[in-house]
Amino acid sequence: MTGTLYGLGIGPGDPDLITVKALKILQATPVLAYPALEDGDSLARAIVAPHLVAPKTEIAIRIPMTVDRAPAQKAYDIAAREIGHHLTSGQNVVVLCEGDPFFYGSFMYLFGRIAEKFPVEVIPGVSSLTACATALQSPLSARNDVLTVLPAPLPSDALAAQLNATDSAAIMKVGRHFERVRDLIVELGLEENARYIERATMDNQKILPLREVAANAAPYFSMILIHKRGQAWK
Amino acid sequence: MTGTLYGLGIGPGDPDLITVKALKILQATPVLAYPALEDGDSLARAIVAPHLVAPKTEIAIRIPMTVDRAPAQKAYDIAAREIGHHLTSGQNVVVLCEGDPFFYGSFMYLFGRIAEKFPVEVIPGVSSLTACATALQSPLSARNDVLTVLPAPLPSDALAAQLNATDSAAIMKVGRHFERVRDLIVELGLEENARYIERATMDNQKILPLREVAANAAPYFSMILIHKRGQAWK
Repeated sequence: MTGTLYGLGIGPGDPDLITVKALKILQATPVLAYPALEDGDSLARAIVAPHLVAPKTEIAIRIPMTVDRAPAQKAYDIAAREIGHHLTSGQNVVVLCEGDPFFYGSFMYLFGRIAEKFPVEVIPGVSSLTACATALQSPLSARNDVLTVLPAPLPSDALAAQLNATDSAAIMKVGRHFERVRDLIVELGLEENARYIERATMDNQKILPLREVAANAAPYFSMILIHKRGQAWK
Repeated sequence: MTGTLYGLGIGPGDPDLITVKALKILQATPVLAYPALEDGDSLARAIVAPHLVAPKTEIAIRIPMTVDRAPAQKAYDIAAREIGHHLTSGQNVVVLCEGDPFFYGSFMYLFGRIAEKFPVEVIPGVSSLTACATALQSPLSARNDVLTVLPAPLPSDALAAQLNATDSAAIMKVGRHFERVRDLIVELGLEENARYIERATMDNQKILPLREVAANAAPYFSMILIHKRGQAWK
């Protein structure tokens, strides 16, 4: 009997935004894997730390953040092999995934390497998309709205075309692209409809008017929501 | 002291896909409101039923499903007034929201009526969007993918333009629009990239190849996911 790999959505940051299902699996599984920075810190592990009641075998997956993707691919190969050893020996393994595993998550790289050989179950989580909207008290979409999720690193002309063609947009991973994206939003006449948030649901969550965000100060976990109807919800 | 209104995301259907935070608020709040069909059934209440440990004051919000929106608006006015009475008297009130309250949820109509007068806290939930993707074992989006959420009732030319301009799409509320949407997907050459699911995470969840879905058999809670990269995740 081989073990099962659980891709566990742990939600956007508030430890209590984990689901009951994910919590049960987390507490029942002996091997715990998670992404971590090269110097060792893991946001995902910190999010679930209040829920860890017994010691586990831990696997920190350290992915080099290089533009060339070959080193990252090699790191995923190594992690998949280590996880595979535990699964082969019959142990279940959890991989922690911030937000939802299949919403811009790195879990899919492990999934692509493991799902053909071992049973994999993926547990959905609260995504940053809806966490940001609720923290901003700003509905994402209603009725027949088109909702477009846009990574900020996309070129400005691609972002502009998408923003012009949608009702509601979420611009993710804003980080170092903030100024370019803000300029674009102003240029398109959408500033009054845009709301900025960083680290939604975490202790250091911050909500600011777009014009008050300092240049070069937006973290990777920042998002801009834009709805063309503004805030009229009736 | 007035009470607080909680817009509570309860997740896509599996009762254990409620968050720990929502569960705590649900169990601590004396007044429970939820959308219900005109004949009385409430899917939202059924989802949380296993978690209800003590009797509560219950408010079934029955919204007429008419094309003319005036009767629905009147029903929301009445529900907002009834909820307002409890809040004025100092009682907290929970409104149950399938999936996430701000992701195509009807909660925003109550939110629009209540948020200016009383404190409102919105708790994000696992949306059908990510629940469908994980149930299909089909990642939604990665890296710099554009992800577009499309309500099926949109006209075919609007759907086609959006599908042509995106990397990944989720077509929601398929229901009676299924055949038209399937024909469009085939016409655009996207059939091999499309996956169909209904009632994700519920006991009667069903996954079918697009061509095997019977005409007129798709329920309202059905979704089609399309990713132009297909299933290559490495």
